[in-house]
Amino acid sequence: MCGIVGYIGSKQAQNLLIEGLGKLEYRGYDSAGLAVYNGETIGIQKTEGRLSRLGERLNVQSLPGSLGIGHTRWATHGKPSDQNSHPHTDQTGRFAIVHNGIIENYIELKEELTAKGHVFESETDSEVVAKLLADLWDGDLVSTVQKAVARLSGAYALGIISEFESDKLVAVRQASPLIVGVGEGENFIASDIPAILKHTRNVYILEDGEMAILKADQVTLMKVDGTPVKRDVFRVEWDINTAEKGGYDHFMLKEIHEQPKAIRDTLAGRLKEHNVDLSHEIALSDEEIKSIDRIHFIACGTAYHAGLVGKYVMEEFTRIPVECDVASEYRYRNPIITDKTLVILVSQSGETADTLAALREARKHGAKVLAITNVVGSSIAREADNVIITWAGPEIAVASTKAYTSQLIAIYLLGVYFAQIRGSKTKAELEEVVHHLQELPEKAEIVLGEEKAIGQFARSIASNEHLFFLGRGLDYAVAMEGSLKLKEVSYIHSEAYAAGELKHGTLALIEEGVPVIALATQKSVYEKMVSNIQEVKARGANVLGLAQEGNTELIKSVNEVIHIPATLDLLAPVLTVIPTQLFAYYACQERGYDVDKPRNLAKSVTVE
Amino acid sequence: MCGIVGYIGSKQAQNLLIEGLGKLEYRGYDSAGLAVYNGETIGIQKTEGRLSRLGERLNVQSLPGSLGIGHTRWATHGKPSDQNSHPHTDQTGRFAIVHNGIIENYIELKEELTAKGHVFESETDSEVVAKLLADLWDGDLVSTVQKAVARLSGAYALGIISEFESDKLVAVRQASPLIVGVGEGENFIASDIPAILKHTRNVYILEDGEMAILKADQVTLMKVDGTPVKRDVFRVEWDINTAEKGGYDHFMLKEIHEQPKAIRDTLAGRLKEHNVDLSHEIALSDEEIKSIDRIHFIACGTAYHAGLVGKYVMEEFTRIPVECDVASEYRYRNPIITDKTLVILVSQSGETADTLAALREARKHGAKVLAITNVVGSSIAREADNVIITWAGPEIAVASTKAYTSQLIAIYLLGVYFAQIRGSKTKAELEEVVHHLQELPEKAEIVLGEEKAIGQFARSIASNEHLFFLGRGLDYAVAMEGSLKLKEVSYIHSEAYAAGELKHGTLALIEEGVPVIALATQKSVYEKMVSNIQEVKARGANVLGLAQEGNTELIKSVNEVIHIPATLDLLAPVLTVIPTQLFAYYACQERGYDVDKPRNLAKSVTVE
Repeated sequence: MCGIVGYIGSKQAQNLLIEGLGKLEYRGYDSAGLAVYNGETIGIQKTEGRLSRLGERLNVQSLPGSLGIGHTRWATHGKPSDQNSHPHTDQTGRFAIVHNGIIENYIELKEELTAKGHVFESETDSEVVAKLLADLWDGDLVSTVQKAVARLSGAYALGIISEFESDKLVAVRQASPLIVGVGEGENFIASDIPAILKHTRNVYILEDGEMAILKADQVTLMKVDGTPVKRDVFRVEWDINTAEKGGYDHFMLKEIHEQPKAIRDTLAGRLKEHNVDLSHEIALSDEEIKSIDRIHFIACGTAYHAGLVGKYVMEEFTRIPVECDVASEYRYRNPIITDKTLVILVSQSGETADTLAALREARKHGAKVLAITNVVGSSIAREADNVIITWAGPEIAVASTKAYTSQLIAIYLLGVYFAQIRGSKTKAELEEVVHHLQELPEKAEIVLGEEKAIGQFARSIASNEHLFFLGRGLDYAVAMEGSLKLKEVSYIHSEAYAAGELKHGTLALIEEGVPVIALATQKSVYEKMVSNIQEVKARGANVLGLAQEGNTELIKSVNEVIHIPATLDLLAPVLTVIPTQLFAYYACQERGYDVDKPRNLAKSVTVE
Repeated sequence: MCGIVGYIGSKQAQNLLIEGLGKLEYRGYDSAGLAVYNGETIGIQKTEGRLSRLGERLNVQSLPGSLGIGHTRWATHGKPSDQNSHPHTDQTGRFAIVHNGIIENYIELKEELTAKGHVFESETDSEVVAKLLADLWDGDLVSTVQKAVARLSGAYALGIISEFESDKLVAVRQASPLIVGVGEGENFIASDIPAILKHTRNVYILEDGEMAILKADQVTLMKVDGTPVKRDVFRVEWDINTAEKGGYDHFMLKEIHEQPKAIRDTLAGRLKEHNVDLSHEIALSDEEIKSIDRIHFIACGTAYHAGLVGKYVMEEFTRIPVECDVASEYRYRNPIITDKTLVILVSQSGETADTLAALREARKHGAKVLAITNVVGSSIAREADNVIITWAGPEIAVASTKAYTSQLIAIYLLGVYFAQIRGSKTKAELEEVVHHLQELPEKAEIVLGEEKAIGQFARSIASNEHLFFLGRGLDYAVAMEGSLKLKEVSYIHSEAYAAGELKHGTLALIEEGVPVIALATQKSVYEKMVSNIQEVKARGANVLGLAQEGNTELIKSVNEVIHIPATLDLLAPVLTVIPTQLFAYYACQERGYDVDKPRNLAKSVTVE
């Protein structure tokens, strides 16, 4: 996920582009850059770090001119660095491009272009586009772009300028969002509407396989094969805040809804037919993977709860004993670590202070170290020997949602991958898992369809100050996460309990009307779970049950049931957590708090 | 701990004895029995099980007569069974005795008496007393008892009758409680006042080394060497309820105060000079102990929290990786168990259904199994290959206190014992631990001296509905237990957090005036803990800190501090938990609930 902008008109482009990028920082913020045509050549400024850092550089050396493109990056291929920042150019500096998406065939293109003498400066997939334009240059920018695009597979929104035709800005869209803003004597491109909303409310929304040729006073739309496209201008009526959140009221809700995509993206490129292939990402050899005799999941907060699921998943797939601990405890308790221990650190930001310290502690004791993180180039990603990136894109809301589900996906992939190598599951078993993994994005969409019913229950209990989540096995792990989510944003004192443990003390707190969220998706403990539900029902609890599709029994024991689509019990957490996220969101709304910025909390905890 | 009663007078003894035993069931209830002289012989009825079962037997075949003794048992030597129940007799049935205490030299006495032809029927230590009386019979009951007592070491309260002198009941006290009730034409003995309070408020309280000779209309006190004793009658002004609780208002408070004794008793006989010797209790050979490569602590509720301490303790002493899990989760999650796995079950009652099922599951998978329980002959004790009994005596209050501290002691003993055998700690290190273990009973007394200050703080926060316990490392494990205790009896929604984890979500719930109990007894994480305390203080929390004696810093960061006597950090949980128990007790009192019988909860959870 990255953000791109472009401007052509009569004003100075630089500040308009920076301003536009500022509205797209939710799409990425690990580096940024601009390319502006100054009447003779294309000037470039780009830097690792937040947009403000680019601003400082431009204060020292500005980029004059009225044609330009800009980019704010969320690293995918290649860590955040000055070199990997966009825009990218060809070797002569005559073509500059910004790109959002992934060029899947970039390795073969890079080899081909390198063989022809093009020298690459970055580790990105994007740079091939600039080199390809120079290679294919036929004296006409639009025709050259069309030829180049014909060579690309994957997803791309592109913004392109060239010294050769400085009256134009060319944009192309394939599977990554792109809009054209239509102004008075000036026109814009952007990944999203908020970037241009200050200047115009008239936009064209490009569709896949379409391109736009912008001049200062004209916009031409066509398919990439040159077929003209006729489209009405779309008049944006949203305010800027809503626009920034993609039409949702809050980032948290937007990010909950982004989960099908985050799951799909995290799976993408890692499934080869019915197998999982992580060999390009993980440095561990097959021999090393076979030698592992203990796994420790170490994390904080929501990521710790992903680790709790990880314990079940890895033990089930590999039969290696797994321990899961919070980083702030682990690092100080003199844990037992050998060179056969694999320590898996889970952190959305990759900067969580305790998790980073635990990583260093584990390395010091000779452990193999693997990180699951959402941020390429983060401290934890840099210091781990092995990294699995979760392709959730930037998470803005403090309460983590899509990062969690993506972490689960990464853990499943790792489990299957290890099981393939260790032979700890049959081929048929693993293929079944892969098959069901592929269905999860679609099933997550179906769960999101229950939003209204979940919202209603949440509003009905929002005045309570106490609430309990119950589950057994994997449902208990999800209950922990659902409970934390509710606490974080609604400040209801929620607590998760292993359902069988409740009667050893906490049952004393269950009285008439206390809301209980009972997760009952796991077949092997279903009957026991129903017994536990009856224990709380008998004391007057108001119970919302979560069950897999096809369960028609649970409703007899609870007040309301939300169903998730049927899947393997082992994979259910990915779906089960979504109703609990929506539940937290709507409970917060009903109570009137700021869901994106809970009191006392910060997004990424970089203190201990 | 057992209860004894005795009657001599003109009424039928049977029902008076049963009634008296009913008031002593808090002292034991695993079996019961009566001996009544019927004018010719001594009739005996005794049975394993609750007193009600004895009542049923007596309904079928009663024991007529006006001289008798009775017993309610809490097994120590020999499991609960009909044979091991009291009263015990000599082979001719002419002497019958009931005993509370432990005859320490019973093995040598038994050997000696067996060699002389006495045939023992039970596994108890107590039976030697009856056989000894027959062996030493000199034609005078008092003189014979004196000779017998001279041979005994250990603790004993004895009630003795004989066909030879059916106008007498003889009682002896040495280090186990015993009183004489003085009636009109009838007299009584009992372990405790409530047993006789319905019939008389006039009692003699025997002292160690004293005996009483009761006739229907006369009581003679003397030392066991025959020296007469003159004592005033003590007039009991307590009501029956208070009397039953040893002068405390509730069993929970009584049991909190019994902890120094429970700790001492659980250590007793297991420390040989500077070493721990469990070789008589544990069947595991040194080779087996050396072969263990993984330990699982499995338990429920409070016992689970003891297991959490156990994880730290066993890893520290043995460097064997330890996992701690709640039984209801463990048994269903397909745990990884081999024949090198030691599964340690912790259960006060020894009947906890989930823990028992987990034990069976572990055995089925070939694990070595060790139980830590408070009840000899309980299902878990019977089915485990190895058992360490906690000598806490019967725990009546639903909220467990002395059982928990005794479980901790059993775990420390096991840790040291394993470390001796595995050589995983130096002799000097282990001797230091043993030294500090021995000081714990006295230090526990000192903590109980803080009762008033703790009660004050508890009352001051009792109107709050939310409260948090914070700790790191071992303090976190104790925080979990303190929090559960508070929940169980006060119904305040309390939650324990690993202090470093709070800022990953739950910090959102900390606002002005929220009470926080912050445990800061562990040196290695002390500074980090203080930082976490400041995080909650900064948000207005009302903080009670717990620290080791000598800490003069903590008071600067909290509202109040309770100190525990200085000890090894590893042993601190035994002392740290006591203020949290008192805190729960007084919070409950202030809120006006029944502390001994919390709503919705049962003492021993024998359902799943």
